[in-house]
Amino acid sequence: MSMDEIEGVCRSVFSRNGCDQPNIDALTRTIVSAERDGSDSHGLFRIPGYVASLRSGKVNGKAAPQVSNKTAAIVSVHGDNGYAPLAIELGIPVLAGSAKKLGIAAMAITHTHHFAALWPEVEALAESGLVGFACVCYKPAVAPFGAREALFGTNPISFAWPRPLKSPFVFDMATASMSMGEVMLAAREGHSVPPGTGLDANGNETTDPAKIVDGVLLPFGGYKGSAIAMMVELLAAGAIGERFSFEAAEADNNDGGPPRGGQFILAISPEIIAGKNWQQHCETFFDRFESIDGARLPGVRRHTNRLSTAPRLVNADLLEKIGQL
Amino acid sequence: MSMDEIEGVCRSVFSRNGCDQPNIDALTRTIVSAERDGSDSHGLFRIPGYVASLRSGKVNGKAAPQVSNKTAAIVSVHGDNGYAPLAIELGIPVLAGSAKKLGIAAMAITHTHHFAALWPEVEALAESGLVGFACVCYKPAVAPFGAREALFGTNPISFAWPRPLKSPFVFDMATASMSMGEVMLAAREGHSVPPGTGLDANGNETTDPAKIVDGVLLPFGGYKGSAIAMMVELLAAGAIGERFSFEAAEADNNDGGPPRGGQFILAISPEIIAGKNWQQHCETFFDRFESIDGARLPGVRRHTNRLSTAPRLVNADLLEKIGQL
Repeated sequence: MSMDEIEGVCRSVFSRNGCDQPNIDALTRTIVSAERDGSDSHGLFRIPGYVASLRSGKVNGKAAPQVSNKTAAIVSVHGDNGYAPLAIELGIPVLAGSAKKLGIAAMAITHTHHFAALWPEVEALAESGLVGFACVCYKPAVAPFGAREALFGTNPISFAWPRPLKSPFVFDMATASMSMGEVMLAAREGHSVPPGTGLDANGNETTDPAKIVDGVLLPFGGYKGSAIAMMVELLAAGAIGERFSFEAAEADNNDGGPPRGGQFILAISPEIIAGKNWQQHCETFFDRFESIDGARLPGVRRHTNRLSTAPRLVNADLLEKIGQL
Repeated sequence: MSMDEIEGVCRSVFSRNGCDQPNIDALTRTIVSAERDGSDSHGLFRIPGYVASLRSGKVNGKAAPQVSNKTAAIVSVHGDNGYAPLAIELGIPVLAGSAKKLGIAAMAITHTHHFAALWPEVEALAESGLVGFACVCYKPAVAPFGAREALFGTNPISFAWPRPLKSPFVFDMATASMSMGEVMLAAREGHSVPPGTGLDANGNETTDPAKIVDGVLLPFGGYKGSAIAMMVELLAAGAIGERFSFEAAEADNNDGGPPRGGQFILAISPEIIAGKNWQQHCETFFDRFESIDGARLPGVRRHTNRLSTAPRLVNADLLEKIGQL
């Protein structure tokens, strides 16, 4: 499918499922950019979930997010129980403005449903010369290190660093060892997964993905990743007054779409903190990194995909399913 | 040794090696609190390194750090080429004041030599009801994921979350898989180390710690930990205009003490962002965490050690070495 055709599918399905124009536009941009970058798991693949929560009434397709400042450095967005993209798009310019004035600012997004990748918001900050950091909780799927019971969501974090005349340095990753989707895929294909990926239903370590599907995921990187997953709960729920993963699950109607939750986004201006030559200085570091054999910057595959104007491959079954929606 | 005796040793050695009273006080507090908490690797053990750089003239024992505001949200501390503790102690109250007014603030510490644990600064923020995050670079010891050559320092990060009438939730951890000291200890004791700890001199994976000592460490948690180690370089050097690990190593005189570097510290006020009930809300999360079998909060061992008024065990060889200094 061409990018235009993908966009048309998005617009059609969201307009037929109760979204108003601002929400159609923001959701379409989110899905189109995921397909453009080859992030298939966050593209059209998510539409059935998006539609499920619009139809169940859990998510407000006509949400009108309200942006305000709690202080000059704290931007607050009440998402009106809609999907996150519109709330993010409305908030980011205000956040960027605050960070450019003060050197640092944070944005607390509440009353939204996040079902997308986390790189669009931090890349948007990087495009205006700022450093971005973002994190969200979800529903419990990951056991704290040492435990056998899920408490943390897959709790992704993203970070973007602006580079002159280049795509930003960006990472966007779950603090879980792997997504449950990847584990299911490994089970279907009969591959084993690395030790530390998850536990079976009895809480025992296993490298058999089929057993992890009935059990629980573990954080990436053992106790250190577990500490970071916990930090995400505290920032994306505790610090902003939204639901922890366990609260989000308890309140959710399990319609197949995302639970209500919040998002914490940070913007930093190296221009203000480090001064004029910061970018030149930092490029010496990137040059050094890129000169090392085997070292690869994250995000490069996405940015390469982005440049392609070729049609994208879309799963036919998925497309038929979306057609019915 | 009693805590008073440990304090006496610190005061004596720093005063005899060119430190003025404010620096003696700050360094002593740093080492005494490490010994008190059982963080032996950051206590008296570091004194020979501290003294080496005072004697070589690399570090200014009479440093008078200058604290200023770049904006209302950005605190800047020029460390006058001294050890970090005094710069941190002078800056933290200013940072806390900014964060309590604005909801978020950052502190850029430059021209210092950091040789201590990272929890004292974030715990100090938590004691005033703020969330703290800190990170520093060092000298290259860790290869980026996929590479065989060191670029990152062990690049620790620390985080503290304030809790009512309880010790804060705190973690302080290297983004390296393990410290080189731990690897050397495993080599001496003949233990193997987990896969992913490091590479041998030829760049091959090994679980033999003796071979890693001649090779290079890896980041914790594979490519995800590598991304976080890189984020630390960018925040603790790039964003504040101080030296990246590779630059710090190139400029260092290798006298056995720490190279010149910077530190990035963040303070956040959940009171301002989430509002009045934030702490009650967050304690429901900690209650849930603590109810899970096997889940353990980081930092608890240190906080338990802290309560003990018993004498501390100190290595006799180390004490003799310090006596000679």
